[in-house]
Amino acid sequence: MTDAVHRTPGDWVCDDNAALFTDLYQLTMLQAYFAEGMHEEAVFDLFIRRLRKRNYLVACGLEPCLHFLETFRFTSDHLAYLDTLGLFKPDFLTYLADVRFTGDVYAVAEGTPVFGGTPLLEVVAPIGQAQLVETFLLNQMTFQTNLATKAHRVRHAARGRAVSDFGMRRMHGTDAALKAARACYIAGIQTTSNVLAGQRYGIPVLGTMAHSYIEAHATEADAFRAFAGLYPDTTLLVDTYDALDGVRALIALCREPGEAFRPGALRLDSGDLTTLAREARRLLDEAGLDHVKIFASNSLDEQEITRLLDAGAPIDGFGVGTRLGTVADLPYLDSVYKLVEYAGEGRMKMAPDKATVPGRKQLYRVYDGEKAVRDVLALHDEAPGGEALLHCVMRGGQRTEAGRPRSLDALHADAEAALRRLPDHLLALEETDTPYPVVLSDGLRIRRDRVRAMLEQRMDV
Amino acid sequence: MTDAVHRTPGDWVCDDNAALFTDLYQLTMLQAYFAEGMHEEAVFDLFIRRLRKRNYLVACGLEPCLHFLETFRFTSDHLAYLDTLGLFKPDFLTYLADVRFTGDVYAVAEGTPVFGGTPLLEVVAPIGQAQLVETFLLNQMTFQTNLATKAHRVRHAARGRAVSDFGMRRMHGTDAALKAARACYIAGIQTTSNVLAGQRYGIPVLGTMAHSYIEAHATEADAFRAFAGLYPDTTLLVDTYDALDGVRALIALCREPGEAFRPGALRLDSGDLTTLAREARRLLDEAGLDHVKIFASNSLDEQEITRLLDAGAPIDGFGVGTRLGTVADLPYLDSVYKLVEYAGEGRMKMAPDKATVPGRKQLYRVYDGEKAVRDVLALHDEAPGGEALLHCVMRGGQRTEAGRPRSLDALHADAEAALRRLPDHLLALEETDTPYPVVLSDGLRIRRDRVRAMLEQRMDV
Repeated sequence: MTDAVHRTPGDWVCDDNAALFTDLYQLTMLQAYFAEGMHEEAVFDLFIRRLRKRNYLVACGLEPCLHFLETFRFTSDHLAYLDTLGLFKPDFLTYLADVRFTGDVYAVAEGTPVFGGTPLLEVVAPIGQAQLVETFLLNQMTFQTNLATKAHRVRHAARGRAVSDFGMRRMHGTDAALKAARACYIAGIQTTSNVLAGQRYGIPVLGTMAHSYIEAHATEADAFRAFAGLYPDTTLLVDTYDALDGVRALIALCREPGEAFRPGALRLDSGDLTTLAREARRLLDEAGLDHVKIFASNSLDEQEITRLLDAGAPIDGFGVGTRLGTVADLPYLDSVYKLVEYAGEGRMKMAPDKATVPGRKQLYRVYDGEKAVRDVLALHDEAPGGEALLHCVMRGGQRTEAGRPRSLDALHADAEAALRRLPDHLLALEETDTPYPVVLSDGLRIRRDRVRAMLEQRMDV
Repeated sequence: MTDAVHRTPGDWVCDDNAALFTDLYQLTMLQAYFAEGMHEEAVFDLFIRRLRKRNYLVACGLEPCLHFLETFRFTSDHLAYLDTLGLFKPDFLTYLADVRFTGDVYAVAEGTPVFGGTPLLEVVAPIGQAQLVETFLLNQMTFQTNLATKAHRVRHAARGRAVSDFGMRRMHGTDAALKAARACYIAGIQTTSNVLAGQRYGIPVLGTMAHSYIEAHATEADAFRAFAGLYPDTTLLVDTYDALDGVRALIALCREPGEAFRPGALRLDSGDLTTLAREARRLLDEAGLDHVKIFASNSLDEQEITRLLDAGAPIDGFGVGTRLGTVADLPYLDSVYKLVEYAGEGRMKMAPDKATVPGRKQLYRVYDGEKAVRDVLALHDEAPGGEALLHCVMRGGQRTEAGRPRSLDALHADAEAALRRLPDHLLALEETDTPYPVVLSDGLRIRRDRVRAMLEQRMDV
């Protein structure tokens, strides 16, 4: 047997199989709609039910959703598999081969700050199609919005100091790590250790060195000399054996004659970072090395960065990994995708803790001077005033001008501008007592009450 | 412009670009080793530093790692990108084009229970190669081991009742959702809503229906009738408007003449599940529908399932989603990949909170009768007794017999057998006061002390 025979196909999700990236019930419901001849237009809202531990969210994940909507296809392989399940009839599988997304999508731009209960995305399409795409849209929007939000908090906590995404090794899989680097960039963390994200998105990549590199050399000084020789201005990791001894070794090398050894920074990755950073700064400054910066990592997040900076730790940059990359304090958002209209008639769920607001909508942001003061969720054709945040990004299954891919720099610039217009108190890390107001327009409130009455009456019949 | 022109390439990680799925420093260190002529054999251990909130872990993720090791390649596209970074020299990029993984891998089988501080994986390879693959191995092993562990806890809490993985919509991306379904299966949650996982792995797929399907119909009864007509024995979601009214509607349909309406179960997805399940059971039993099962979902995890069953909730099956799929109570494990030997000489990190144990190792599990009583971490060529858990799965970059892909059923069966041999008290959901003992063999302890002394002496020189 040759080498090739042993190779197993990889377990990847990509354009070839993304159509199957769905919950089974989306397909059984699609067949039911097909069998019942129910092809009327439906409206689904994707939103985060309510904020927890956050005062705002940063919407993210739209671009991969649009790509999916314009490309997913069921291939003969997919249909052959579905046929084995004993759930699907031949005429449905024939129909499924031709299913495309032909609907409209309205969405807030990536990077836009959003709040609980308002649509990040609204899908208007024949009901089976609109339902079918739920799983992929939720999967992408949920974690990317969560990541972008966390990244913005971390970046804000760093008070202008450099922050880099170092989290790919403990993120949940490859897709998470790639998209997280993108979400971080949009939210203001604009370097990453993720080389693939660098290649794919043009994000500047950053790296230092690992403890193993130091350990592989006979002495720490040997390792420093070799690495800095190859990479002038690099960052040297000083805490493999003893952090302050590492700093002293670095200083001794800087004092050697010649220009060969000129590291740009040192990195601390363990211990009491405040104390170590202070001591390291003192040693560097005493040696006339005030241009050598101090970079810190090790279980950092927005809370820890705040503690370090409040304590006056002289740290110039942070590598933030696992706690950002897994959004460790809030690993998921309460995202949902809810039917709000079918065949022109409002729909809503009335379960006490999960009630929804019926009908197509527009989301308006109202400003007082430079600052946003409230969002108004309104009927889609109402005009209560303010800036409309839902843009038509796809029409009839094709991207509109507003739906074209945009550069990450453009997305980031708009995100920055919009985030600066939030009330300042929302940027506190703790949950505010005075959350940003989101209100329903008069028109929407009237419609909600009317739909509720209609549905209650219908159930009583 | 045609439709095709607007299409952007998707953001996927797959065989074509997995080589770039790495932290930048892996590549800069590889170039440094290349420049320094350091190609000696290194040994790296991948392990979880210590257990938190868990009494055991279930190792998972090896198969995607082996696939990566045997397939990753730097293509000319990759090299062209790396060239733009201004960090890499032409001779290194030429060398990189030919880099393959040519090392050996020792690993515990997927599904094996493991503990803190012992290798899940040991890589023996020229140092640059061994270092290069760190990011991918950690990314895959960390979250899949975390998922499998959580899944086993959930499954144990369900006390033999059916459990299904419903989490893909809020997991962190597509790779997470695909591999999580696999991890769940190995750990004993053997149905999933994830159709792609069904196709790729042969995992039985399961689905019920969404609230939107009910809402799209004029009445709940219309929706029930249509869906159950198409899918006999299906599960009907009863809580769109009022859960017990939904149960009554289902019962009324069952009483209509004929055989047409025969649902297998109903699903509760909101409210007080214990009370609702009791009432639903009573109504069903009074109607002679004791064969109709009750399926529950909504923010479930092992703690909530335990509460429900302790309260006597008559629930026959659980759909477990977000809290399992994101491992919400513990979104990451403290996984690391550490150099323990270079050029035949032990290496260790001595930072107080992050010290490692040097040298190649074997992990032995010692039994007393049927039950495991301790693990002994030993020198790789020591034989302190017990069952050796690290198997050679790859030699010279090629899979060994032990490294061949195995069926998920075989992996699950072995996992079950091994998990049954754990001390019973470890299966408690709370952290135990008497953790499973993991000890160092005499040989390993002597080597650790010797390496430490050698390194301390070297640093003093």
